[in-house]
Formats: sequence, structure tokens, C-alpha cells
Amino acid sequence: MAPRIEFYFDFGSPNAYLAYKVMPALEQRLGTKVELKPALLGGIFKATGNQSPGVTLAGVPTKAAYERKESDRFIARHQLTAFRFNPAFPINTLHMMRGSMLAKRLDLFEPYVAAVYAGMWEQAVNMGDLDVYHRVLTDAGLPTQAFVEHVADPEVKAALVASTEEAIGRGVFGSPAFFVGDEMFFGKDRLREVEEEFTRQAAA
Amino acid sequence: MAPRIEFYFDFGSPNAYLAYKVMPALEQRLGTKVELKPALLGGIFKATGNQSPGVTLAGVPTKAAYERKESDRFIARHQLTAFRFNPAFPINTLHMMRGSMLAKRLDLFEPYVAAVYAGMWEQAVNMGDLDVYHRVLTDAGLPTQAFVEHVADPEVKAALVASTEEAIGRGVFGSPAFFVGDEMFFGKDRLREVEEEFTRQAAA
Repeated sequence: MAPRIEFYFDFGSPNAYLAYKVMPALEQRLGTKVELKPALLGGIFKATGNQSPGVTLAGVPTKAAYERKESDRFIARHQLTAFRFNPAFPINTLHMMRGSMLAKRLDLFEPYVAAVYAGMWEQAVNMGDLDVYHRVLTDAGLPTQAFVEHVADPEVKAALVASTEEAIGRGVFGSPAFFVGDEMFFGKDRLREVEEEFTRQAAA
Repeated sequence: MAPRIEFYFDFGSPNAYLAYKVMPALEQRLGTKVELKPALLGGIFKATGNQSPGVTLAGVPTKAAYERKESDRFIARHQLTAFRFNPAFPINTLHMMRGSMLAKRLDLFEPYVAAVYAGMWEQAVNMGDLDVYHRVLTDAGLPTQAFVEHVADPEVKAALVASTEEAIGRGVFGSPAFFVGDEMFFGKDRLREVEEEFTRQAAA
């Protein structure tokens, strides 16, 4: 039986965006659907003791340069020409992440994620600014008023906490993280292994 | 024209050992020879501000556990069943690394590297102890007395400094690091990209 593929993401991670953009091609090759799951990176870092690459690589310029090069290679390999690094990075993503849980309830998860990712890493506008965030939703044809009114509803906040705690409980320490069944893979550079593990489990 | 593949290593890195063990298969697939180049990790860390995973992951247990899992996957995929984690890790490798430069002069580089790597990560003995190190050389049929007498000769020390500085100058920040022509790849998990880049450059 074909295993589930789950993808824990936070909008604030450019590497998660890059992985997100290659999911349609991966889904087509494997004949399956990848399940996108919001997991707040701030909460993950707090729980695991991990830090963002921006922090850990600040004192190691040649390693930071190499990681940028690996991102450039990934972008070139998959022709992700719409990508632009967001000049406002790092951006607090709490409202965007809560919004993704609300979007699930509104049955608008996929268009919401697409709109917010485009705002973050294609238009590369300051999505930490609520006016900018709301304009991006409106421009994408989403019901902005529902997000204004309900993004901080207790059940929406609780849903994001639960999704984040689920990720932490499974060993997630950063973004993007993938599961093929119970097997975890971290980072955009392990997508080939994700595909191979899917094929292996599907054949088992 | 086929590009050079260079592999900067330090005996102290288990990931460099694991990469070293798959070089024969890679060389056979590509029809080329990989050039092993000693580069002292302590010097690299000092120059770049980088630290060993043992230090950076000490406070992030789930990330450390994941990296161990990725090593286990690599070992299983390539059937590197001789590997044993060295209980004396981390071990100061300065004499082993200087010895590799001396071995080059003695035209014994390949058997020396094989013997020292086996001592470090197969026999997994305390190679930081000079008596143990010398016994490993003797057991491998190497001229131990030459290493006792000449490992700290000024030109041997200078050769290791030069090789390490060359690596640092090219952007190396850890071990193992690979170059295909001028393109750097870091880590045992990027060997597929090393092969693809070799094929790309060879066809260009």
C-alpha cells in the first residue's frame, strides 16, 4: 500500500518554499498527494533548542555562502525563477500560520498557502505587516474579512499549537521536514530520498 | 575534458570516512580517480568560525538523533558494515594528518590512509595514543620507524599547513568537502550531485 507523505512547513523558511514549489512534479511522478502540515518554526525551535540558519551561520561566512550556493543550485535545477529572497526576512509568521489553520476550516487551504507563499517569496513583500498580508489575500481572491475576524479564534490558535506539537513529537527540528510513513527526512536536499523511500514502502 | 575530483578530508570525521569508503565505486562508475587531500579540521574550524557537529548539536538532541539516522541510512545503503563509531571520539588527529603528508613523500599515501582510517573507524582504537597509532601502522606493513622519526619534520608540518590553507582558501569549512573542477560540494550526502556535476562538466 502506498504510504502517506507529510510535509511540515512554516512560511518563514525559504527552503520550505523551494520544496513546496517542486511538490506538484513530485506528486505527479509518484502518483500521490503530499499532505502539507503547518508547524510553527518558532515553537519548534523553542522546544528543540534548534536555531535558524540565519543565527547559526552568522559567524561562519563561508558555510553561509555555501548554503546560498546550494539554494541557487536547487533553484536552477528546478527552474524556480519566480523566487526572490524577501528583504524583510526574518518575518514573524504567527498570523500567517494561524491563517493556514483557519483556511483549512474554510476549505481554502491550498489557495491560501499558494497566495501566502507567493507573497513571501515571489512578490517578496513584508508579510509581517498585517495590511500587506491582507492585501495579498484580497488580491488572490480570498475572503480577507474572515481572516481579519477569525485568525485569532481560540480553536484556530489551538489547531496550530496541536499541529506544531505533533511535529515536535515526531522529531521535527526545522523546516521543511518530510515523513514517508514514519521515516523522517529533513531539508529540501533530501527529496530524492523521499521519493525513493515512497517507492520502497509502496512496493513492500 | 574530464574535470578533477578533489576530496578534502580529516581522519577525525566519521562522515569523511563513510565518504572515503564509497570512493572506489564512484571512481569505477565515472572512470576517474578521486584525489584525496588532507586538510586539518582544527585549522579549518579556527579559520572559518565553524564548529564540529558534536559541539553545534549538543543542545539539539532531536537534530543530533536525525543526523545519526542519516549516517545509519548511508551505512545501510552502501553496506559499510565494517564501520564502528570510535569510543575515544573526538581524537586529536594532528600526528595522523601530518603522517599523511609524510606518506605522500614516501609514496605510501594510499596504504597509509587505508590503515589509519581502518584504525579510526573499523578497529575503532584510540589513535590519539601514539603507541596505538604506531601499532596500527606496523600491523598494516608500513615503515613505522620512518613515521616516528619524520612526522614532525618542518617540511612535513609545512605541507599539512599548505594543504589546509589551500582548502580554506577555496571555501572549505568542514569535512568531507569535494570539488569537481571549481564547484564545491559539502558532506557525504551530496555525492550524487558530485557525480552529476562530473558528468555535466565532462560533457561540456
